[in-house]
Amino acid sequence: MKFKVKDMDIATGGPLVAVLNEKDAEELDLHSEDRVLIGRDGKKVTCILNISQSNRAVPKGEIGLYEEVLDKLKVKHTSTVKLFFTGKPESVHHIRDKLYGKELNYEECFHIMRDITEDKLSSIEKTYFVAAGFSNGWTAKEVVNMTKAMVNTGQRIKFSGITLDKHCIGGVPGNRTTMIVVPIIAAAGFTMPKTSSRAITSPAGTADTMECLAKVEMSEKKIKEVIRKTKGCIVHGGSMNLAPADDKIIKVEHPLSIDAEGQLLASVMAKKYSVSANHVLIDIPMGPDVKVRNLVEAKRLKRKFEMIGKHLKINTKVVITDGRQPIGYGIGPCLEAEDVIAVFENKPTAPKDLKDKAVTLAGILLKMTGKVKNGKKEALRILESGEAWRKFKEIVQAQGATKKAVCGGFHYAVRSGKSGIVRKINNKTIAKVARIAGAPKDKGAGLIINKKIGDKVEKKDVLFTIVAESEFKFDLAKEIARKDKGYIIK
Amino acid sequence: MKFKVKDMDIATGGPLVAVLNEKDAEELDLHSEDRVLIGRDGKKVTCILNISQSNRAVPKGEIGLYEEVLDKLKVKHTSTVKLFFTGKPESVHHIRDKLYGKELNYEECFHIMRDITEDKLSSIEKTYFVAAGFSNGWTAKEVVNMTKAMVNTGQRIKFSGITLDKHCIGGVPGNRTTMIVVPIIAAAGFTMPKTSSRAITSPAGTADTMECLAKVEMSEKKIKEVIRKTKGCIVHGGSMNLAPADDKIIKVEHPLSIDAEGQLLASVMAKKYSVSANHVLIDIPMGPDVKVRNLVEAKRLKRKFEMIGKHLKINTKVVITDGRQPIGYGIGPCLEAEDVIAVFENKPTAPKDLKDKAVTLAGILLKMTGKVKNGKKEALRILESGEAWRKFKEIVQAQGATKKAVCGGFHYAVRSGKSGIVRKINNKTIAKVARIAGAPKDKGAGLIINKKIGDKVEKKDVLFTIVAESEFKFDLAKEIARKDKGYIIK
Repeated sequence: MKFKVKDMDIATGGPLVAVLNEKDAEELDLHSEDRVLIGRDGKKVTCILNISQSNRAVPKGEIGLYEEVLDKLKVKHTSTVKLFFTGKPESVHHIRDKLYGKELNYEECFHIMRDITEDKLSSIEKTYFVAAGFSNGWTAKEVVNMTKAMVNTGQRIKFSGITLDKHCIGGVPGNRTTMIVVPIIAAAGFTMPKTSSRAITSPAGTADTMECLAKVEMSEKKIKEVIRKTKGCIVHGGSMNLAPADDKIIKVEHPLSIDAEGQLLASVMAKKYSVSANHVLIDIPMGPDVKVRNLVEAKRLKRKFEMIGKHLKINTKVVITDGRQPIGYGIGPCLEAEDVIAVFENKPTAPKDLKDKAVTLAGILLKMTGKVKNGKKEALRILESGEAWRKFKEIVQAQGATKKAVCGGFHYAVRSGKSGIVRKINNKTIAKVARIAGAPKDKGAGLIINKKIGDKVEKKDVLFTIVAESEFKFDLAKEIARKDKGYIIK
Repeated sequence: MKFKVKDMDIATGGPLVAVLNEKDAEELDLHSEDRVLIGRDGKKVTCILNISQSNRAVPKGEIGLYEEVLDKLKVKHTSTVKLFFTGKPESVHHIRDKLYGKELNYEECFHIMRDITEDKLSSIEKTYFVAAGFSNGWTAKEVVNMTKAMVNTGQRIKFSGITLDKHCIGGVPGNRTTMIVVPIIAAAGFTMPKTSSRAITSPAGTADTMECLAKVEMSEKKIKEVIRKTKGCIVHGGSMNLAPADDKIIKVEHPLSIDAEGQLLASVMAKKYSVSANHVLIDIPMGPDVKVRNLVEAKRLKRKFEMIGKHLKINTKVVITDGRQPIGYGIGPCLEAEDVIAVFENKPTAPKDLKDKAVTLAGILLKMTGKVKNGKKEALRILESGEAWRKFKEIVQAQGATKKAVCGGFHYAVRSGKSGIVRKINNKTIAKVARIAGAPKDKGAGLIINKKIGDKVEKKDVLFTIVAESEFKFDLAKEIARKDKGYIIK
């Protein structure tokens, strides 16, 4: 079957899409979301079919192709291509099996991860995969299979010897320990190739914050160079094709804001396995408005991480930490970077909670290497002696320093309506206000926490300060904060 | 926020879609699949957002709108529209709740069905709904809620007095009892407003077969007229907006060919409830390659149908029938219509199995009315006396007769490779060959079953005959049948 190509002038950034007129589709007994092979000059690509009901969009006898398909086939508007029938890829059958409750083996997980990576599955099929895993759960074996499959369908960076890594499952604004932990570990002489994420729904990810000071997007080659020079790095993992299926899965979780546990475990461990880490510390914050709300849940998740780690032959430790309120004072990339620097500089205004947590985590990591006896004491020494600060500046230079971002010029103090003791601070409300103020897109936007849990407040005392770069977002954030401050004072 | 409209020249036939350049989307913190309100001159519509990575498709400052959006807003290429933020509809939260295991009440089901009907949910969200129901199951209460919600978000046709209906859950090729049952019931003086479906994956639906003889697409008004004149009708339900959410749900089940039980129950009962049927007979074929494979499953499904019927105050009976092989001789619209006519005409060549099944079902329905004592005997009398045949011709005239379709001119006999007794016939293989031969799109295509289970065959005896209208499809079907005939002979 031959069709004239119509350039649809659309790029999905993902799935390969071809569009037929509904009359042609009916004639060929093809349906929306079916797969077809489109070929020209011996090249063939599998596309997911859309149906056009309008004759203007795709007339009968023509086939609309998205940019990705035109590029792969090297065809242009009005070229002729051939259409062939093709069945569903095997991975769709595996997804169906999982939905029916079957346990997936490594090969099946690999097929699914490969087809997700290569954009061969439609959003509907990926959604069934996530939903099936969410509802039926994943066994430990399946999580291990999925983790390995995610890693093996992406790039892997190898480092020799002791390689450390850490990960926090998130939910606590201002939790920028990574930027302090990595220099401590590197200053102690151990390798720590840390890849971090950008914010998706939070006011800042470590990659966003680090970017206020240094470049974070770099090639595998460049990362290896940075590690060779300094032993540590803090870069953005997203640009590196480590476990790429993971990011594509997260995209279909987003519309329903679901967070499937098996997916989380595989996602975290795959990133660590991809950089060949052999000692990994997982930080599970616990609190009323983060992912893990109580000790039962936290311990269950801890056991699962440890079990997966064991299967992957990664020495995995899990700490359950205080997730009841934001960490540090600043929320938002630039304000958080200021907190980090204050800790390095041993300033009296440095946030004690951030420093304590970073030193504790670094201490555990040092101890995990088996080479340091009193990890925490050594971590504290490295930090307070200025060694970590020197190492951090070395890393920044090696990655490439950026012009330091400046915090926003609009400030507004949100004050308490009554006096008492701060009993609760809602992480989600704080994150929301910071995001509306412009974080993380506006690097200088966010907020400063002036009162924390346990603090005494008088009426009219400042609880937190909104910081913004744009007046429009500033006004929007003020309005939101007026409705709900997220503080409980009694 | 103002944007210049770009006419994308695409019609989805469903969801309202708007496309922003990725730079604008990033600036506004919007993601793919987020919802936005697009407004102009006081009119506002909710759209699902796509992101364009190419500047050619949608440049910064412009917003690409699909045909449905342009029509609703009455805007054109280069008009200006305003964009407003909006949250997810409530129904998305209900879907999320269901995924987390919550039982949905009527109001929640109504929100979901309404938003599906109005194309306010994306494919991903609809998929989560189907998957959640599939994995967690639906309670009887939920199925009733969903059924009522499906009906109340569509059109309902009211008839007075005793109104009968039947439904077969499908899977058996050639099972065209409806075309015989309806005239028997109508000839007995009872109302039977039968809406049937077209084939989705089978070689023919009742609507496809009936269309060989009469028009099947008609308005509510026309159906009422047909019923007034003849008491019965056999029309296509799809064009009538009865429980429209159902068809949209089935579309997202298609990519994974899943068949969620709760969905099936609601789907069937909603169509019956929509035409205000008060006596309903459900036919569950049982066999190794249809939906229901054994008596345990069949009885479980039977109980559920009866329970839902009770809740809906519909007198519901369920019969478990033989689904081990095709019914009648012809498979495909035209060939099946010939079988039906042969039964009406009492021809000696009429398929006995089709006649027996139709009379049995009609008999049960007659008995359900409480007005007929020996239903089966009466049904047989009506059929054999020619009353049913006269009634059928009346119905055809009332609906509008079409020029009778002619069966295809290409014939090929598929012969047995050995002698013995036919032990099994695979419904799926038969359906596949018939479909590849052109059914149901080519009304005259399909196949003729020459040997049935229990028949003795000699080597080289004809098992079935492929019939096609187009030589291309004929060759394709022959090729497939050569690989697998679907017969087990021992």
